[in-house]
Amino acid sequence: MPFFAQPAMLRELAVLVGGEIVGDSDVLIAGIASLEKAGPGDLSFLGGAGYQDQYEATGAAAVLISPNRYERETDSKTVVLVDDPHEAVQILLKQLFPAPASEWGISQGVVIETGARWKGRVAIGRGSAIGSDSVLGENCRIGSQVIVGRGVTVGDECVISDTAVLCDGVVLGNRVSVLAGARVGTPGFGFVPGSSNSRRIPHPGGCILHDDVEVGANTTIDSGSVEATVIGARTKIDNLVQIAHNVQIGEDCILVAQVGLAGSTVLEDRVTVAGQAGLAGHLTVGTGARIGAQSGVIGDIAVGATVSGYPARNHREVLRQVAALRRITLILDGLESLVADDASE
Amino acid sequence: MPFFAQPAMLRELAVLVGGEIVGDSDVLIAGIASLEKAGPGDLSFLGGAGYQDQYEATGAAAVLISPNRYERETDSKTVVLVDDPHEAVQILLKQLFPAPASEWGISQGVVIETGARWKGRVAIGRGSAIGSDSVLGENCRIGSQVIVGRGVTVGDECVISDTAVLCDGVVLGNRVSVLAGARVGTPGFGFVPGSSNSRRIPHPGGCILHDDVEVGANTTIDSGSVEATVIGARTKIDNLVQIAHNVQIGEDCILVAQVGLAGSTVLEDRVTVAGQAGLAGHLTVGTGARIGAQSGVIGDIAVGATVSGYPARNHREVLRQVAALRRITLILDGLESLVADDASE
Amino acid sequence: MPFFAQPAMLRELAVLVGGEIVGDSDVLIAGIASLEKAGPGDLSFLGGAGYQDQYEATGAAAVLISPNRYERETDSKTVVLVDDPHEAVQILLKQLFPAPASEWGISQGVVIETGARWKGRVAIGRGSAIGSDSVLGENCRIGSQVIVGRGVTVGDECVISDTAVLCDGVVLGNRVSVLAGARVGTPGFGFVPGSSNSRRIPHPGGCILHDDVEVGANTTIDSGSVEATVIGARTKIDNLVQIAHNVQIGEDCILVAQVGLAGSTVLEDRVTVAGQAGLAGHLTVGTGARIGAQSGVIGDIAVGATVSGYPARNHREVLRQVAALRRITLILDGLESLVADDASE
Repeated sequence: MPFFAQPAMLRELAVLVGGEIVGDSDVLIAGIASLEKAGPGDLSFLGGAGYQDQYEATGAAAVLISPNRYERETDSKTVVLVDDPHEAVQILLKQLFPAPASEWGISQGVVIETGARWKGRVAIGRGSAIGSDSVLGENCRIGSQVIVGRGVTVGDECVISDTAVLCDGVVLGNRVSVLAGARVGTPGFGFVPGSSNSRRIPHPGGCILHDDVEVGANTTIDSGSVEATVIGARTKIDNLVQIAHNVQIGEDCILVAQVGLAGSTVLEDRVTVAGQAGLAGHLTVGTGARIGAQSGVIGDIAVGATVSGYPARNHREVLRQVAALRRITLILDGLESLVADDASE
Repeated sequence: MPFFAQPAMLRELAVLVGGEIVGDSDVLIAGIASLEKAGPGDLSFLGGAGYQDQYEATGAAAVLISPNRYERETDSKTVVLVDDPHEAVQILLKQLFPAPASEWGISQGVVIETGARWKGRVAIGRGSAIGSDSVLGENCRIGSQVIVGRGVTVGDECVISDTAVLCDGVVLGNRVSVLAGARVGTPGFGFVPGSSNSRRIPHPGGCILHDDVEVGANTTIDSGSVEATVIGARTKIDNLVQIAHNVQIGEDCILVAQVGLAGSTVLEDRVTVAGQAGLAGHLTVGTGARIGAQSGVIGDIAVGATVSGYPARNHREVLRQVAALRRITLILDGLESLVADDASE
Repeated sequence: MPFFAQPAMLRELAVLVGGEIVGDSDVLIAGIASLEKAGPGDLSFLGGAGYQDQYEATGAAAVLISPNRYERETDSKTVVLVDDPHEAVQILLKQLFPAPASEWGISQGVVIETGARWKGRVAIGRGSAIGSDSVLGENCRIGSQVIVGRGVTVGDECVISDTAVLCDGVVLGNRVSVLAGARVGTPGFGFVPGSSNSRRIPHPGGCILHDDVEVGANTTIDSGSVEATVIGARTKIDNLVQIAHNVQIGEDCILVAQVGLAGSTVLEDRVTVAGQAGLAGHLTVGTGARIGAQSGVIGDIAVGATVSGYPARNHREVLRQVAALRRITLILDGLESLVADDASE
């Protein structure tokens, strides 16, 4: 926890998480650390069973702990009683390590093309460019060496990190975050068929990212061919994810790192796709479905289903089949031994 | 379809796709949209069965339709009869949304190192650099913040998009396209063996991308160690693909997103590798072979073969095995039930 | 082998690999090439069985060859006898193609924020930025358009390639190499749970990369949430790898391209993870374990184990199961034929 902390008194922090302090509430907390590594300026947390020894030995100034793990009579530590210590940690991290105060304004070397404008306070980092006729909402923070193409719309309070690229015509809602190296609105992987000398066809459909979408580092989201590629509100996309042209993603979805979605596939709301899973094109995944890590989805997935494997199917079925394969392997091995024994007699 | 269209009369568009207009040929078309979303300035298309209702209700100015779906007597819509409406859409997208007219010339802040030169008209965007002794062909468009290393050769009419990097010594043919964030010619993943303090060995072999190759966003192509990594003419590479050192790819291959090729593997001509497939090193994949999504290829693949799964094998065999596993699981479950029933009697 | 060679006499090269020359030691060598492609200025190598014809026909000036493949009486070629020709090639590549001599100093357009400093000789390329209070060690080479955030520590002799990003607070040891487009210290994929309008929580834990770590092109390494994400000394990471927040990697590990490690997973020392493998979060992989390509690891892996498949398990077991599945498929097909034959009688 090396730097940029904004220290706070333990009692202030306890209020933020609705916790009860037992012990000294007048400690200055400058960081959060595991039980093992925490020192006198740190808050720590007892995350679950199996850490009791570390809890006893911790050097932390105070510990977030669930009431049902805390023995009030015998424990002399300063603690903060909260139902969910992990959740409390997440909240307090935001408090102790606030997003760095941007220096608002336009840095040196920024290029603003004709017709580009912003609606209020804005920060644009060194070497970035805002293309012609693009519009930035209020309180946007654009990092360094960011390229915002032409005719791009960025809503209020968006954060576009260093080296990200928003291609021509991309539309972002409010509070969208795009991390370093992400490419939004790149031309889709489509070519004029049958041509011996084909080049990528234009993909003027663009990309629309609705409010509170987050896009991970080095992730690529292709522009739609005829209509836009759409990412619904509050959907979170991790690093190195590939989203092909014309994909339609609903609200509150989660796409973990290295997931790939082929063209025109539809995710309804609240779909979770675990890491490295791949979805073929032109499929529909129903609301609330959960797709396991590394799954290979080649057909539609029903509302609420949990699938895994290749081809992706009911997760319990997959587990049963994995077990069956183990059993049948043993059976076949056993049969072979029998035959071999028999032959050798 | 928000912007940058170059509208055209329906009759001009029909000529381009060899289509017959039934209805009003004097409509100005400014975009292409699905049947559902098309408005009075849009051309739409009837892509297949199952869209008849949307066809009836569409607000499109005209619809591309196959003659065998069109009932001339009863239909009052303006249509363009073409054998393959999907192909026609691709062609017309190129017409309606032409590549933006580059402003030819060198932008501000561009660095041209000694000995770098170009053969004719060229566009180089802000903050880009052309390394010493590099040569750009005619009509090349280099985006913003592109880094062209030293001794690089770029053919005619190449497009290098924003933030791409061409490392020292890379050779591109004509009409090569490299999308945002692609890294071509990065050092291969090889180290002096046995050293306790090893660092990457030099990979001076370079990369050669022949005519009409396309490289997707954030894709990485490593330089060869002893000889060049080679991508054959007209091969198309999608986003986030990894191509290791010394790989040799033939002509007219297709590599879909997130594919990975390990070192020294050879793809002959017209090989298709679907998304997220991985190939081990030092393999040969025969002409025309098709490698399914997420396949794990650990041996040579015969000419014309279609493979899938891990380890990748004949695709039909994989399907039969998936089915067999389902059947054997049911059989084992049934046997267990029998034993359990028997035991409880 | 197009360029940048630093030619040397064969006898000098032989000394470097402890080889015995048979033939003319006064040849100037300007490159290394395969037997098939080598010309009169090239050194080549006989890498294994099956290349005898190419060896006979090669135009190379000299060939690295193992003594047990060399027939001294009958062979008239100039050769260098070495036990391991492949290893010798790697060593000589370093000699013949030395890392280009950096022009030390600060290029034009570089931004040095307040408090940033360096300890000795340094090279910083065009358009790069060193954030406030960051420290560079001696003899560091920072490429072009590199972003070094605030409070970053870079050890001696590090190489940060063009367009790489080191986020705020990242710590690098000595001789660390970060290739083009890599993002080190990006915020982890974690959100305040339960919030309907959640945004990424801060990840102030940072990243620590110890001595001699190498990070591939377009790879992403997320910052830790509470404590640092740590990469141990001499660990080599290939292109397009994803390392999530709080991952702890030991020394001398190898992570091949497109591998993904989920949050808080621990790799002990000398672990090898082959291409496209994925590891779930909060796991421990024991020292010396080997994880096969495309494996899906969902549980702890024992010290020294070799695993593959999904879910990852003993590699031999996987091979036996693959074989068993093939056999059982044939058996079931045979049974069905019997039943069909029987029914048709």
